[in-house]
Amino acid sequence: MADLTRETGVPVPTIKYYLREGLLPPGRPIGRNQAEYSQAHVRRLRLVRALVAYGGLSIAVIRDLVRHLDDPDVSGGDLLGAAQLTVTARHDPPPGPGRDRAERIIDDFMARHGWHDLERHPSRQTMIGLVTSLTELGREDMLDVLDDYAVAAEQIAEADLRIVGELRDRERVLEIVVLGTQLGDTIITSLRRLAQAHVAQRIHGPSPSGQSPSGSSPSGPAPCGPFPSAGTWSG
Amino acid sequence: MADLTRETGVPVPTIKYYLREGLLPPGRPIGRNQAEYSQAHVRRLRLVRALVAYGGLSIAVIRDLVRHLDDPDVSGGDLLGAAQLTVTARHDPPPGPGRDRAERIIDDFMARHGWHDLERHPSRQTMIGLVTSLTELGREDMLDVLDDYAVAAEQIAEADLRIVGELRDRERVLEIVVLGTQLGDTIITSLRRLAQAHVAQRIHGPSPSGQSPSGSSPSGPAPCGPFPSAGTWSG
Repeated sequence: MADLTRETGVPVPTIKYYLREGLLPPGRPIGRNQAEYSQAHVRRLRLVRALVAYGGLSIAVIRDLVRHLDDPDVSGGDLLGAAQLTVTARHDPPPGPGRDRAERIIDDFMARHGWHDLERHPSRQTMIGLVTSLTELGREDMLDVLDDYAVAAEQIAEADLRIVGELRDRERVLEIVVLGTQLGDTIITSLRRLAQAHVAQRIHGPSPSGQSPSGSSPSGPAPCGPFPSAGTWSG
Repeated sequence: MADLTRETGVPVPTIKYYLREGLLPPGRPIGRNQAEYSQAHVRRLRLVRALVAYGGLSIAVIRDLVRHLDDPDVSGGDLLGAAQLTVTARHDPPPGPGRDRAERIIDDFMARHGWHDLERHPSRQTMIGLVTSLTELGREDMLDVLDDYAVAAEQIAEADLRIVGELRDRERVLEIVVLGTQLGDTIITSLRRLAQAHVAQRIHGPSPSGQSPSGSSPSGPAPCGPFPSAGTWSG
């Protein structure tokens, strides 16, 4: 077990916890209180640590995923679907006329983009809730972005599925889907911010200081307030 | 004030709280304990409620934004930048060789996409942190998606800036930037999930049931576990 710690940096008590919780299979017994661990253990331990640290998943959810990973009756495609669902929140909008209208808007939208057979996908419910909110806020004009967003989302998904690649290496599928979805969401929203700043500079002029909003140095402290100093975004 | 409540649905105690906190300008006094409120108040109240409910912003941040909104010395472009920064988290990665390498990767990447003058944008730091994490997890292969993501992010940003439109209507700029960034992030990540399911169906075959993963009906309860029933994602 000391070797496992040396190779992965995961402390022994944490490894023992993962063993007790069934996230890591037991080692091969080689004597009293001694067990041998293989490279497969090292790999599984790295995966579990990554799912805990970056997947935002509970131990129970990771245990279920790992069980699927080791179950030969679960196909690679099923594993992919299961992993995607664990990182998909579901927000059901309350029923009402606003929701019925939003449901029609989303169904038209999905049909327009050829996204079929997804009537029961949890993200369809989330979209209906978001559209309900926007229309109730009187901001139906913001729905004009949806078609552009859908085209961009499909390009993102193509890249995602290309990275998952062949479904044969099951641990890789699980790790990439969970990390790629959670870290990937943050990557996409960060790139969106950068691209917004880039496009805004192009439209409304470059910042005179040649720097972007925050006045602090890259390695310095975070800015105290949420606002750029005057003039850093000329409009 | 009863009229304000009738028009917006915001309860009187909440309106009083917003007045005290300076989120809503006082009405025109028309007698003892009486004030007249205009359509501008109705609009501002709707904006504040939306920023509280959907922007995830603190009262202090909204007060600063509203102050900028009413300050004629703050240009439309500055307001846009300020609003974008309030909804941009900053995560500084710890220094180290991994970070230095990630910094070079991100700078090459941004130069490749012509994203200049963004050295101090908080999202550049977040990206460096994410790349550091991925390389430390041994998942550098996942960086292959970055260029496709950047192209998609720029399309999203073009749509975002188009919706903001002219910077003359300042309340609209503020509302759309804050709502469009916060709700927009959730829209984009939900569309990404749907598009992943759509592309996965295309590559790995449609689900035999003609339905997507969750077995519950659209208006039914959320699924109990994170997993689809066996076979709903054929692979």
